[in-house]
Amino acid sequence: MKVTLKDIAQRTGYSINTVSHALSGKTDIAAGTRAEIRKIAAEMGYIRNTAASGLRSGRSRTIALILPDVANPNFIIIFRGIEAFFRQKSYTVFVLNTDEDPAIEREAIHAALAQNADGILLCPAAGDEDNLAYLKSTGVPFCLIGRRQDGTDADYVVCDDALGGYLAASHLFDAGHRHLAFFNGDLRISAAKERLEGIRRAHAERKLPLSEGRLLTLSVKTDSSNRAQMHRFFMAHPEVTGLITFSDLLAYEAIRVLEDMNKSVPNDLSVVGFDNICSDFSFSPALSSVSVSKKTMATAAAELIWSKIEENATQKEQIILPTKLIQRRTVKNNA
Amino acid sequence: MKVTLKDIAQRTGYSINTVSHALSGKTDIAAGTRAEIRKIAAEMGYIRNTAASGLRSGRSRTIALILPDVANPNFIIIFRGIEAFFRQKSYTVFVLNTDEDPAIEREAIHAALAQNADGILLCPAAGDEDNLAYLKSTGVPFCLIGRRQDGTDADYVVCDDALGGYLAASHLFDAGHRHLAFFNGDLRISAAKERLEGIRRAHAERKLPLSEGRLLTLSVKTDSSNRAQMHRFFMAHPEVTGLITFSDLLAYEAIRVLEDMNKSVPNDLSVVGFDNICSDFSFSPALSSVSVSKKTMATAAAELIWSKIEENATQKEQIILPTKLIQRRTVKNNA
Repeated sequence: MKVTLKDIAQRTGYSINTVSHALSGKTDIAAGTRAEIRKIAAEMGYIRNTAASGLRSGRSRTIALILPDVANPNFIIIFRGIEAFFRQKSYTVFVLNTDEDPAIEREAIHAALAQNADGILLCPAAGDEDNLAYLKSTGVPFCLIGRRQDGTDADYVVCDDALGGYLAASHLFDAGHRHLAFFNGDLRISAAKERLEGIRRAHAERKLPLSEGRLLTLSVKTDSSNRAQMHRFFMAHPEVTGLITFSDLLAYEAIRVLEDMNKSVPNDLSVVGFDNICSDFSFSPALSSVSVSKKTMATAAAELIWSKIEENATQKEQIILPTKLIQRRTVKNNA
Repeated sequence: MKVTLKDIAQRTGYSINTVSHALSGKTDIAAGTRAEIRKIAAEMGYIRNTAASGLRSGRSRTIALILPDVANPNFIIIFRGIEAFFRQKSYTVFVLNTDEDPAIEREAIHAALAQNADGILLCPAAGDEDNLAYLKSTGVPFCLIGRRQDGTDADYVVCDDALGGYLAASHLFDAGHRHLAFFNGDLRISAAKERLEGIRRAHAERKLPLSEGRLLTLSVKTDSSNRAQMHRFFMAHPEVTGLITFSDLLAYEAIRVLEDMNKSVPNDLSVVGFDNICSDFSFSPALSSVSVSKKTMATAAAELIWSKIEENATQKEQIILPTKLIQRRTVKNNA
């Protein structure tokens, strides 16, 4: 037996019109009244057919979050922050995965549009310029998160990756390390490119050379193995005492490779990752890492897209949040 | 400029009717023709309004996957398996998170229904019997994954958790350990209850006592901290040389606590987790763990729900997949 607006009106004592406005989130109903009606409607088992009402009102009360690698704990922590924000707004967030593949990303965008998502939050895969142009052409509110694109006028929320790279390298220099390596991702990813810039700046500032041979480009997808490449690299570069990795997951992969070589962290090699996944996960060893506050980033992106949807904000917003270094146990003082 | 069926018909040379049937996945069109039309339509930028066509055809070509803790790598690996299956079917999988909370789970079910999901895959939160009854009353095809419920006639795909508990304890016994502890989750979770049964059976078989004081119930949510409880437990139970944990994440949390106590794994304590997240992640130390093949589980659940949706299968299916022990580096031979 389907619960109707009329049933809810009878139960609550409000008019059908008031109930309808309250349930569809219209702001002409006082917030307290809206909350009361929604609570009773939920208790009665009322389900809005969002797809149908979306066709009428143009709103589906859903947000699509399109991520390149849903298996990376970093993205999951961000997802939960976005979800927490939208739960307060009675919006549902659904996640689509692109596997760092622009073709799959295009399908995910299509799926989000087909589901009438009111807004799209996208962390773009490397090399997806066409998708961004396409997404822009659709007119659906969207915002990039975690990665941006050169010369785009799209809204974005990213962290200061150049500062992050600078902080990571400077921290290792301060601890007495002189020969650093950087295990990076595809340079078409803005975060990869900008972190490298920061690392270069830290080297330049100390007048230390950054050998190109100590930059290794690896896959940033969780299910790919970089172990053989890492092993060869460590064999070829015994002079390296400090390692920076594009992600904490790559750092842990490197630590496993070192373990197989009977080397230990930080005694044989100091490691600084990116993402600070140890904020939410108890992995071992406790990893020194560079990160933005992921909750701040999630909330900023959620608020940005919300302002586009609910308040029809049209101003361009490009937000760069500060990064910081979290010191744990993987950097040894070499001074 | 919106691409229409007519545009696609002109480009492909097929009739509008053929194009329409091909794009909506009707099986009266040869598979090769369907694939050809879909490919060209995608290249032309065609978007089916799934929500609208769902209202007409009763199909939205979406699957909702409702997970208790999207931050657990175990669930993410399963998500990717399900997604891989449905990508082949031109279905989109979206994920909703319940935070192990039956109230949020109810909202997630409402959201999935409101989005006209064709099927729902649910890993139920502890204590959600009402939600299951409700979900059943809606008539939407659904299947439980990873956890089941006592006495339910719902379809499910789980692993043999009792066998898993038995294997974990037997492995530690074989390595010479006699005093085991089990860090478990809420016993209303079928996996928690059944793993404990298996551990009890292994003890009974060897005529070894299982002290109730060495069973600790912990939160299985990734963002909760169990460290203080674990620390107290380790202080109070120096006799324990073998630990089994409900999840690999709990195992890594325990290893971090031991690290803080200047104890090492496996020298001071041998540890066996559940989930085998090291199949996809390079965390350290390489963890001995009990698991089903997550890909097999994902595919089995996807095929099950697919048969309900596409073939209108009505037969009850309750699938229990075998578990096995994966030996890595966290169990020391104590014999």
